[in-house]
Amino acid sequence: MPVDTILVGFSVNRSCTTNKDERKTLLENVESVLGDYLPLLKFQRSMQVGDIFVSVYTADRDSIVSVKCFSAGGVICAIEYYKEDNENPLLNFECIRKLEQSLTKKCHGKRSNAFPAIELGAVVDRYFTATDDRILEYDIDSIVYETTSPYQRIRIMHSRTLGNLLVLDEHQNLAESDLIYTETLMQRGKENYEGKEIVILGGGDGALLWELLKEKPKFVTMVEIDEQVMQACQKHLRSCCGYCLDQYKGENYEIIVDDCVKVLEKFIKEGKQFDYVFADLTDVPLSSTPQGELWDFIRLILNISFKVLKRTGKYMTHASGVSCPSALSMFESQLKQLPVPVKFTRDQAFVPSFMEHWVFYQVQPICR
Amino acid sequence: MPVDTILVGFSVNRSCTTNKDERKTLLENVESVLGDYLPLLKFQRSMQVGDIFVSVYTADRDSIVSVKCFSAGGVICAIEYYKEDNENPLLNFECIRKLEQSLTKKCHGKRSNAFPAIELGAVVDRYFTATDDRILEYDIDSIVYETTSPYQRIRIMHSRTLGNLLVLDEHQNLAESDLIYTETLMQRGKENYEGKEIVILGGGDGALLWELLKEKPKFVTMVEIDEQVMQACQKHLRSCCGYCLDQYKGENYEIIVDDCVKVLEKFIKEGKQFDYVFADLTDVPLSSTPQGELWDFIRLILNISFKVLKRTGKYMTHASGVSCPSALSMFESQLKQLPVPVKFTRDQAFVPSFMEHWVFYQVQPICR
Repeated sequence: MPVDTILVGFSVNRSCTTNKDERKTLLENVESVLGDYLPLLKFQRSMQVGDIFVSVYTADRDSIVSVKCFSAGGVICAIEYYKEDNENPLLNFECIRKLEQSLTKKCHGKRSNAFPAIELGAVVDRYFTATDDRILEYDIDSIVYETTSPYQRIRIMHSRTLGNLLVLDEHQNLAESDLIYTETLMQRGKENYEGKEIVILGGGDGALLWELLKEKPKFVTMVEIDEQVMQACQKHLRSCCGYCLDQYKGENYEIIVDDCVKVLEKFIKEGKQFDYVFADLTDVPLSSTPQGELWDFIRLILNISFKVLKRTGKYMTHASGVSCPSALSMFESQLKQLPVPVKFTRDQAFVPSFMEHWVFYQVQPICR
Repeated sequence: MPVDTILVGFSVNRSCTTNKDERKTLLENVESVLGDYLPLLKFQRSMQVGDIFVSVYTADRDSIVSVKCFSAGGVICAIEYYKEDNENPLLNFECIRKLEQSLTKKCHGKRSNAFPAIELGAVVDRYFTATDDRILEYDIDSIVYETTSPYQRIRIMHSRTLGNLLVLDEHQNLAESDLIYTETLMQRGKENYEGKEIVILGGGDGALLWELLKEKPKFVTMVEIDEQVMQACQKHLRSCCGYCLDQYKGENYEIIVDDCVKVLEKFIKEGKQFDYVFADLTDVPLSSTPQGELWDFIRLILNISFKVLKRTGKYMTHASGVSCPSALSMFESQLKQLPVPVKFTRDQAFVPSFMEHWVFYQVQPICR
């Protein structure tokens, strides 16, 4: 369907929107400026909706233009129109900025804003959010692959600057530009993996496995529940996962397609112990109240992970964006409640495809 | 004024919005879902505007809710309301996402989108754009300092994750998180500045001067036209510029407050030559046609810079975001047209406060 919405707003003195005569002048000015940018602008009707005064126009490319005067002194112009997926917006951002400036000048506006056309319903959805729900528009130009597994919606999207990007449900997950993510998670250069036994929980993109294998570990076991994520990454994120997802068994690694809780419980029964447990699973949930499925899941993973960890071992995980400190302190308070006393360090890195700093934890049992 | 706009959209079969009966059902469904989230929702009127069918409601917090049915099969719900600067949005993003899902389910929608509340006219403007006009919302929580100099609007804004951020006019310029910017510009570790004579054109934030001084140069001359930028950074970007802006003359540096073109011409007359010329001025313009003031300015700077550069010297500059390849190739073609034959290398780095990869050039005369 793509529908584009162009928003331009500015503030004026209260009386400009509430006093009938002043509002008339204001609207005449707005209309005259809008007409310079939209030659087919044609007044349709005006109405009072609650304490908002609305004027509606039709304009170029069958757009609907509404000008809303808020009694508190704000004026918002919205231009909405249907747009084919590969069509250009009605006004580019340079033009929208000029419109903003002209409107503000002509109407003696104060604070003003203008937004590039916001696209709803496009085949290629370019918008994601940061941990704290800030809107971020990506330079995604195509969908490389898309499927829905029993667990999630899996998309590989192509970003002009980040390369291929794995998107799980609505979340940006890992891009070809994100080596820093894997290197910070594994603390490359600070940890020595040579001859070590390692288990990865999750990690379906294969990037962590691939980078760990370069460090000559004794054996890496990866447990990923969603085979379709691996198939997508094996094909479309090869610069991240190399050829390690081509076969599920290698000389010094094995990929088990299963629920990691089940597999860990089997390891516990068998008395299997690891030098490193990597939790490369779902993000730490954002709520600061330790309720709900996701926190339960994280607690469960933490508890069983420490049962398969050598006393000299380390539990390594990513947590959340630095913009969500409540989630980070929640995670740290979970660590303090573990049956095994632990100490931890944290590190952070700016992850290009997240467009924010991400926090990683290294947790180890306190030996007594 | 702050006015918030919440946008939720989804696509339906064409007939759902064009067939009168189907549209009636669709609107009943939309209204019933909206009512679950906005208990005070009250129908006001509906109207046909061009080929768009619009229903208008009032709702909680004196909001105006408009539902637009586009004949091509798109439905857009916009919720707009006045909001005090420190007030919470009417619906948080979790709630908006649920609204999106409920609407899509109830109306048998296909592609759907939801946006966190977009704020126009707030005292603290959190939105900037990438080089290619993508919208990026920053976690800015306060304006630390604001002024307008004869040259530009200068703001220091505080970002929760980037630290203090210098904003010139509408552009994010340098944040406390951006050491990588300066280090890539100067190619730290790859260039040897010890005992060298250097000139910086621009660089008013002081970060480049500060980092260069750590490398024991013989002398650094910085020429910045806007003293007010330096005063702002000296006070609020101290982690970037250290104390180098406290005094304009030091043992091995001098800051000249003047137009760099004028100063360079004086240097040419005096026969002064440098080992490095840094252009830390305005961004490379985005247009791919070498017209207009900014490209003229860049050409001028390039030409006079090479006149004060030793034959063994280097011209170092930042250029543009990788998302704007046309500006980059335009810059490179400018290099080829210089009266002095040159060769160049380029490097790039992800700059946190730009939220994108930025390209830097190192240009040197070809000695014959």
